[in-house]
Amino acid sequence: MKFQNSIDVTQYKSKGFISAYQKLIKETVIPFQYDVMCDNVEGADKSHVIKNFVNAGKALRGENTDDGFFGMVFQDSDAAKWLEAVAYSLAVIPDEKLEKTADELIELIAQAQDEDGYLNSFFTIKDREKRWTNLLEGHELYCSGHMIEAACAYYEATGKRKLLDVMLKNAKHIYNLFVKEKKEGYGGHPEIELALLRLYKLTGEKFCLETAKHFIDVRGVDRDFFKKECEKRKWKVWGMSPGDLHYNQSHAPVREQTDAVGHSVRAVYLYTAMADLAAIVEDEELSEACLRLWKSITEKRLYITGAIGSTVHGEAFTVDYDLPGDTAYAETCASIGLMMFASKMLESKLEGEYADIMEKAFYNCVLAGIALDGKSFFYVNPLECIPGVSAVACTHSHVKTQRPKWYPCACCPPNVARLISSFGKYVYGENSEAVFCHLYAAGEVSFKNGVDFSLESQYPYDMNLKFNIKKGGKKLYIRIPSWSKSFGTEKNGKEVSLKAEKGYVCFDICDGDEIVIRLYDEPYFVYSNNAVSALSNKKALMRGPLVYCFEGNDNENDVLSLRLNDGKKATVSEKNKNLSGAVTLKAHCFRRESFSSLYSLEKPDEKEYVATAIPYYTWCNRGENQMRVWL
Amino acid sequence: MKFQNSIDVTQYKSKGFISAYQKLIKETVIPFQYDVMCDNVEGADKSHVIKNFVNAGKALRGENTDDGFFGMVFQDSDAAKWLEAVAYSLAVIPDEKLEKTADELIELIAQAQDEDGYLNSFFTIKDREKRWTNLLEGHELYCSGHMIEAACAYYEATGKRKLLDVMLKNAKHIYNLFVKEKKEGYGGHPEIELALLRLYKLTGEKFCLETAKHFIDVRGVDRDFFKKECEKRKWKVWGMSPGDLHYNQSHAPVREQTDAVGHSVRAVYLYTAMADLAAIVEDEELSEACLRLWKSITEKRLYITGAIGSTVHGEAFTVDYDLPGDTAYAETCASIGLMMFASKMLESKLEGEYADIMEKAFYNCVLAGIALDGKSFFYVNPLECIPGVSAVACTHSHVKTQRPKWYPCACCPPNVARLISSFGKYVYGENSEAVFCHLYAAGEVSFKNGVDFSLESQYPYDMNLKFNIKKGGKKLYIRIPSWSKSFGTEKNGKEVSLKAEKGYVCFDICDGDEIVIRLYDEPYFVYSNNAVSALSNKKALMRGPLVYCFEGNDNENDVLSLRLNDGKKATVSEKNKNLSGAVTLKAHCFRRESFSSLYSLEKPDEKEYVATAIPYYTWCNRGENQMRVWL
Repeated sequence: MKFQNSIDVTQYKSKGFISAYQKLIKETVIPFQYDVMCDNVEGADKSHVIKNFVNAGKALRGENTDDGFFGMVFQDSDAAKWLEAVAYSLAVIPDEKLEKTADELIELIAQAQDEDGYLNSFFTIKDREKRWTNLLEGHELYCSGHMIEAACAYYEATGKRKLLDVMLKNAKHIYNLFVKEKKEGYGGHPEIELALLRLYKLTGEKFCLETAKHFIDVRGVDRDFFKKECEKRKWKVWGMSPGDLHYNQSHAPVREQTDAVGHSVRAVYLYTAMADLAAIVEDEELSEACLRLWKSITEKRLYITGAIGSTVHGEAFTVDYDLPGDTAYAETCASIGLMMFASKMLESKLEGEYADIMEKAFYNCVLAGIALDGKSFFYVNPLECIPGVSAVACTHSHVKTQRPKWYPCACCPPNVARLISSFGKYVYGENSEAVFCHLYAAGEVSFKNGVDFSLESQYPYDMNLKFNIKKGGKKLYIRIPSWSKSFGTEKNGKEVSLKAEKGYVCFDICDGDEIVIRLYDEPYFVYSNNAVSALSNKKALMRGPLVYCFEGNDNENDVLSLRLNDGKKATVSEKNKNLSGAVTLKAHCFRRESFSSLYSLEKPDEKEYVATAIPYYTWCNRGENQMRVWL
Repeated sequence: MKFQNSIDVTQYKSKGFISAYQKLIKETVIPFQYDVMCDNVEGADKSHVIKNFVNAGKALRGENTDDGFFGMVFQDSDAAKWLEAVAYSLAVIPDEKLEKTADELIELIAQAQDEDGYLNSFFTIKDREKRWTNLLEGHELYCSGHMIEAACAYYEATGKRKLLDVMLKNAKHIYNLFVKEKKEGYGGHPEIELALLRLYKLTGEKFCLETAKHFIDVRGVDRDFFKKECEKRKWKVWGMSPGDLHYNQSHAPVREQTDAVGHSVRAVYLYTAMADLAAIVEDEELSEACLRLWKSITEKRLYITGAIGSTVHGEAFTVDYDLPGDTAYAETCASIGLMMFASKMLESKLEGEYADIMEKAFYNCVLAGIALDGKSFFYVNPLECIPGVSAVACTHSHVKTQRPKWYPCACCPPNVARLISSFGKYVYGENSEAVFCHLYAAGEVSFKNGVDFSLESQYPYDMNLKFNIKKGGKKLYIRIPSWSKSFGTEKNGKEVSLKAEKGYVCFDICDGDEIVIRLYDEPYFVYSNNAVSALSNKKALMRGPLVYCFEGNDNENDVLSLRLNDGKKATVSEKNKNLSGAVTLKAHCFRRESFSSLYSLEKPDEKEYVATAIPYYTWCNRGENQMRVWL
């Protein structure tokens, strides 16, 4: 039993916490994003993405393209991510009207496809001659990748092949060009690789696997490729330096890479594909590279919230142990990408740490990316926000103190939508012998291997998990998180003593079995490695998978004078109605007396103070105010 | 008794600590910098500054300019600062050979002056038509300013008028152009203002005062000036944005400015001139603006080391309380400029805080700018250095972990040289009724008002100050620093009880009097305002005026795991021979156990550890290693 696959999104029907989020995506985020795509939202940046497809279709038919192209060179991908989210949402909550809207958009996309399979509204509208001449900046492969993901998801959810056929034709076009005709190069932003592997798994089309493998294999081999490409073309998108090879992970052949470097979203999208390919073709060398990169991230370059990317410069990783909280980039998309990478690592090797990181990223950084009302979004997720410094100082200008409604580069909001809607894929897995519960999303799951169970839980706020097995006959692997200092297991009302192996306990399950897992439910403190200079002598507070933070709102508008007293236990407090019922904690602190001068020679008095902590993902839902994770 | 002037550099003969530094400047720095200026130092960036003057002379005579101009647009100022340092040094330690070298350079400079008084090798060699067309970037006024300062200093030290006459002619040229002919604009980098005021004070030439006042008055009035200038010209130096008005303090008329903003060196050079002008013409509104800007710096934007400039972006101030230690810009020149500003504020109002800040800047940031052997220099003076992050992470690339020998933009090394050589000017002041001791530089001082005394002290390592009055008859004001928690005063062997008023004690002194001041000599801890998020719950260690730091070298190569125990007194330890005899301290700390993971749920043990602290200015004199000021 070496491999297990994640389930299809249709196999899981959510309840509780996840269900509420999926409902929010369905009822608020998806319609809002559609309105944005139609340029119908006042105060939000113009999207024009749907008009771009319409105009591309017109361009192909030789008609006047009207108001032409607007937006980023990768604007198409917003529609792709929206469609992917819609697909997942339809699988969970059917909606005829929404499906019709999606079908119409797909029709527009189909009409924007060129005869040879090429699909990209920017180039089709603006200048077909420039196609494939700027892989560094052009994002053609990136946009194709996202649309392939949307096509797979839409087919899985609805059984409709239209977009799938469009994207198979597009993939064939890419295969012909890069594999058969041996055009040099690879995408400046990885994404096509993981998408083609997904398309291969869904359709069995070998040319998709071959093309994905090709792009992974050639990356970083010819280190001068982007430079040569740049010299040949006479146009640019932003004028990116073709010499910054680390930025797009082309500094070395992927199998030789050791540290997670460069643009963090690009990095984890690439590593996701590498991990998937390594499993599919059983490539040991590639597997080892993935493990090295995984360790580089998780052992040296990861925020406690599951965020990655320490700097706004290149939205990138920096160096080991450089994890500033106030200037973090910590992009929502990067944590989503990290979940994808973790999920692929997990599929090929059952190790608790992969799901630990998925969980950490999801319940903290990713959920922080979206407001509790689903109407505004963070791109950057700092671990500390100080109004007056954050967003104001030039070093902090990327750190917003409030979630904006939308972004000119709108990658994160639709990415959150598709992630949440497809959450079941990350939670459960199966193979012929067993089923796997990596995360603990309440609801019903029907596995292809015949197992069927429901999970009752108020997770992440209640650490009791009750599995009601409707159909058993296989093994059930349940992860015990590394944060759970102790745990209890029960089968059919009887305590059973089990040891976790590599982070999982295993049960033989029969029809009608009831299995209960009780995870550690006390708040606990977290300490950082001494090498993280930004966190010297600081402590963070967690409960279950949730990182907690301290906001000014709950703490006399001043969290900077607080120091956590880890000598006393923090306690579970009440549910906060203004934060969707999030459970708050009370933590013993020392509050340092303030003085007016910049420096003082007198030791300031400290008074005991019981501070209120809220889950990090709920921060900034009550207006601009101070926030700190590490005290 | 409202005003007091600083003394001339010739009036003070140093001993002890300052004498050793002045000797170092004389014997090592000045010859080294001369060799750099002649391009005779291997491994140092090419300067070419002397050849530039030679070539400018050739250009004026219509000769072939040989190898033309090389270096920064403000390269001339390196020679000016060197000449100024030489002048001060000659005043303190006469040296015929050095004086001859300086005379020769002055001759070259004189030959590089155009008939109309214009002097600037860049424009004279490259393109005379571009003169005065790019005040934003061209640095012509800046270079003139530095050369005027050199001329004043050289005249004061040697009585030789050659350079003074050259610069009076140059000043007249500037006066004619900007005041008489009403050419619009002002310098992108303030400096001319303070220099013209100095020239006015030395020569009594009213047109110098008038021109300085003009430049101060017009700054920031026409907020579109740089934009209009930029539109008119077809060339650029770096392509600076003419719209970034804060960068060069032209965002508002100077009398309306409230916060210290923009490029920190530009800022304090401007404020120095403003403070000087306010005193000369008794301009109350300007005085008040100076006080606001002073408070903005010292109450909200000042590092404990007397450094300013929180970010490398624009080498600039950011916002209140934003004082990161590891990414600080903290330029040596900026602290020198802050000393100049403080010195001018002090001349018009006797308040201890001005000298407190001068002292803080000098003994910490400024001295850290130069290696103990005088052979390498810091431009950036961080409060924390972590090899592996500092200089490596893109956010830390400006933070060097070792002092380079020289810089392509070599403003700091000659600036340190001129500051140290002229240190007496900052230490002592006088007027007709009194003499003033602001800082405590051991040696002999002869005041113009007849007072004559010597000061014996091992300051900054011994806090006992003994004044032997040779000639008295006036009042002697001696500053009591704000860090001195207590102090004792003795006159002729008898304890006298004096209260400090506005930071000064006052004695009536007679010939033969012996006055002893005993300042607080224990190490002490410093705490920062809660609003400084980078310093939450951290403490620093000081003794006397010296900020101490902890280096890996003395502390098992790991200072990141240390936490200061301010419940126990730190103690004075031994003199470190490898650090020019700097007195080290021992401080009780807790050292946190290390673990290998990035985060841990187990509270790490702490062990008591006695750490060794060294004066901040001596850091990084024993190779690359960790350094931290705040623990």
